[in-house]
Amino acid sequence: MAAERMVVVGGDAAGMTAASQARRLKGRHELEIVAFERGHFASYSACGIPYWVGGDVSDRDDLIARTPREHAERDIDLRMRTEVRELDVPGQRVLARDLETGRETWTGYDKLVLATGASPLRPPLPGIDAPGVHGVQSLDDGQALIDTLAGSKGRHAVVIGAGYIGVEMAEALLRHGFEVTVLHRDEQPMSTLDPDMGRLVNEAMTGMGITVLGGAAVTEIRTGEDGRVRAVATRDSEYPADVVVLGIGVRPRTELAEAAGLPLGESGGLLTDLSMRVRGHEDIWAGGDCVEVLDLVSGRTRHIALGTHANKHGQVIGANTGGGYATFPGVVGTAVSKVCDVEIARTGLREKEARAVGLRFVTVTAESTSRAGYYPGAQTMTVKMTAERGTGRLLGVQIVGGEGAGKRVDVAAVALTAGMTVERMTVLDLGYAPPFSPVWDPVLVAARKAVRKVREAN
Amino acid sequence: MAAERMVVVGGDAAGMTAASQARRLKGRHELEIVAFERGHFASYSACGIPYWVGGDVSDRDDLIARTPREHAERDIDLRMRTEVRELDVPGQRVLARDLETGRETWTGYDKLVLATGASPLRPPLPGIDAPGVHGVQSLDDGQALIDTLAGSKGRHAVVIGAGYIGVEMAEALLRHGFEVTVLHRDEQPMSTLDPDMGRLVNEAMTGMGITVLGGAAVTEIRTGEDGRVRAVATRDSEYPADVVVLGIGVRPRTELAEAAGLPLGESGGLLTDLSMRVRGHEDIWAGGDCVEVLDLVSGRTRHIALGTHANKHGQVIGANTGGGYATFPGVVGTAVSKVCDVEIARTGLREKEARAVGLRFVTVTAESTSRAGYYPGAQTMTVKMTAERGTGRLLGVQIVGGEGAGKRVDVAAVALTAGMTVERMTVLDLGYAPPFSPVWDPVLVAARKAVRKVREAN
Repeated sequence: MAAERMVVVGGDAAGMTAASQARRLKGRHELEIVAFERGHFASYSACGIPYWVGGDVSDRDDLIARTPREHAERDIDLRMRTEVRELDVPGQRVLARDLETGRETWTGYDKLVLATGASPLRPPLPGIDAPGVHGVQSLDDGQALIDTLAGSKGRHAVVIGAGYIGVEMAEALLRHGFEVTVLHRDEQPMSTLDPDMGRLVNEAMTGMGITVLGGAAVTEIRTGEDGRVRAVATRDSEYPADVVVLGIGVRPRTELAEAAGLPLGESGGLLTDLSMRVRGHEDIWAGGDCVEVLDLVSGRTRHIALGTHANKHGQVIGANTGGGYATFPGVVGTAVSKVCDVEIARTGLREKEARAVGLRFVTVTAESTSRAGYYPGAQTMTVKMTAERGTGRLLGVQIVGGEGAGKRVDVAAVALTAGMTVERMTVLDLGYAPPFSPVWDPVLVAARKAVRKVREAN
Repeated sequence: MAAERMVVVGGDAAGMTAASQARRLKGRHELEIVAFERGHFASYSACGIPYWVGGDVSDRDDLIARTPREHAERDIDLRMRTEVRELDVPGQRVLARDLETGRETWTGYDKLVLATGASPLRPPLPGIDAPGVHGVQSLDDGQALIDTLAGSKGRHAVVIGAGYIGVEMAEALLRHGFEVTVLHRDEQPMSTLDPDMGRLVNEAMTGMGITVLGGAAVTEIRTGEDGRVRAVATRDSEYPADVVVLGIGVRPRTELAEAAGLPLGESGGLLTDLSMRVRGHEDIWAGGDCVEVLDLVSGRTRHIALGTHANKHGQVIGANTGGGYATFPGVVGTAVSKVCDVEIARTGLREKEARAVGLRFVTVTAESTSRAGYYPGAQTMTVKMTAERGTGRLLGVQIVGGEGAGKRVDVAAVALTAGMTVERMTVLDLGYAPPFSPVWDPVLVAARKAVRKVREAN
């Protein structure tokens, strides 16, 4: 029997995890694996780029989990700088172009894995392509930004966007000694949080010396005589800028899939079944930043670009294409980040999201500390909790606070997954000792408040 | 209508939380609350004593959550230095003795709350009562130990017992500059862990310069000419000791309850229903270190002396005695501690415990890091996971590692509560960003290994 061929489009987290997992299950005589990556790097941690730029991570190669050579040693034929230009779904083949030589060739597949990732949003503003304006999506982007920062004589940096990438880049630029201005469109930064929690992030960032300006729609990026960026303009104002970082967000990179007629969701991401197989296609899988995932709390599909999901998708795809069995049941919307020493976390639904799917709910906010109040290093934190009216089922948690705050969201993530009520949460058996927690863990303090509010609302 | 009277026996976490919660629900005209405490302190954090002795907490009063005066201001009649000597269950009254005056009086109750705590085990060894031998159960004990440490000319300390208190006290004594020897009976320290995980604690403690000796049954505490402790003897050896700390464990303090014919479990703790009412008694509640709790994983009752449970019991008792409604469904056996910078955590069943209740299981051990491996300060940790054969249901997790290791046990605690399988755990949506976690959280790494082992075992 001739070996089956699996073709992987996209050589980062989802694609190469799928390839590696499939290889673990099937040897090269059973399964040939060919992967195409259009960039210069594969299998790297994009989430680590802000910390590399900020100097926490000194060596770019630390962000690379596995080199092309290491993949080759496992009989995975990873072709770098090779871009897939077309999917021929009925013909079961892909057209790939070698970006160095320009040569294009068709490769047939028995199984296809789409892991094309996401594209950074890059609004068509005047000056957006000027030198000194940087995205931070790829390792190449990161290196270009680091070079700009090293060569910059001025010390003004503007970050456009105040989501995870925006706030992380604000920290990185601050560490380089820049005066940092963050411009964003919403009322508060971190629009993945409710505005009342975003306000806490705003206050913390302001306290760090970062200028955070909401409701600021950028109209133009202005350049100097040398053609380099010199300022960012909004309708009302102009902000001097020696470097501009774009952190506006990303969208699924699914042009190929769309052209091939594969099913896309409302956010433009590929739609898959629970085994990560593209809906309606027996021999095509998709995972990572190019798909939509089922949000288990809202019951809708969403686009969430996050390395941890991409790895899990890859694992599931690799198991299934390798002859095993695994499923990805969906997400609850957990995310965690930090700006300097302020940790930011969320899981479940924001108020707006809950309302949009017809849920009625109560919210509470509780202040607490990361350790027993009397124990050195106890940090304050604010926990916001949302629970369904009537049932008291947990719908979401948001946390902003000092060291030890962020990962507490995991307790809520598991409780959400299990469909737990806030009442059941109040008596969860969480780890307690003075260096680790107050006698009531902050999440439980919020749960107790939520129980009272649910009862009052009934 | 005359006010009902609630009598609380024991003025620490469970008792005073019950009193405070009941008071929140019912004013003094509806409910009179009288609480008896035989010691000099009420409402304090016994769990904080090792950190006070070690110097992390400088002021004893920091450990006191609420003073008798603060209770009085809430119309809770807390009578200090008053010991309840007898329960007259049919007569609905308790006999209390004022330890200052010796006067004894009967007090009638409509509702009785037993929160008598636990007694430290104090084996009847020769010399056990010699000056320089200390328990660390109460604030008085802590102060006496601090005085001994301050006055000690010699620098040899021996800790008897290597459970939570034992290892925490080893750290405290180390911080005072003592040469610390820990003597314990088992193969490894921390017998609440499996021996293979206890060995990691042993290695870490040894690395800190602590001498840890297992299989060491103490036969005698030897005193010098001044009558003070000078050494601890085992069958084979003698260890010089200027101070000895007892950390052997505790047992429920239920002599009163036993004399009154209330139902006790195998560990000697009071048996309650889900509302924390003593079984078979409509008007008596019990909580904290004097009760046994239902272990949701093994299905058996256990005795676990832990402040966080005591607070939760108090909350439940207060709700129910105050006319509200709450239950304590049970525990999963979570505990967390540390020795210097090594964190130790467990939840669910040890291998021995699982076997004892007829479970068959697989175990795996996984090494991982607290943050992305490339992020500064990433600490290594070892996660051991136990899962049921066949079903793959999670049965337990144990963790030993650096900063960020301990509280990860909470994820497993919630998963256990929800009866999750290790397979479902592999795709849990936990918070990920490089400063907080590798792309696969250490608990998920262990879950992935456990899935494979469960399948192999089937």
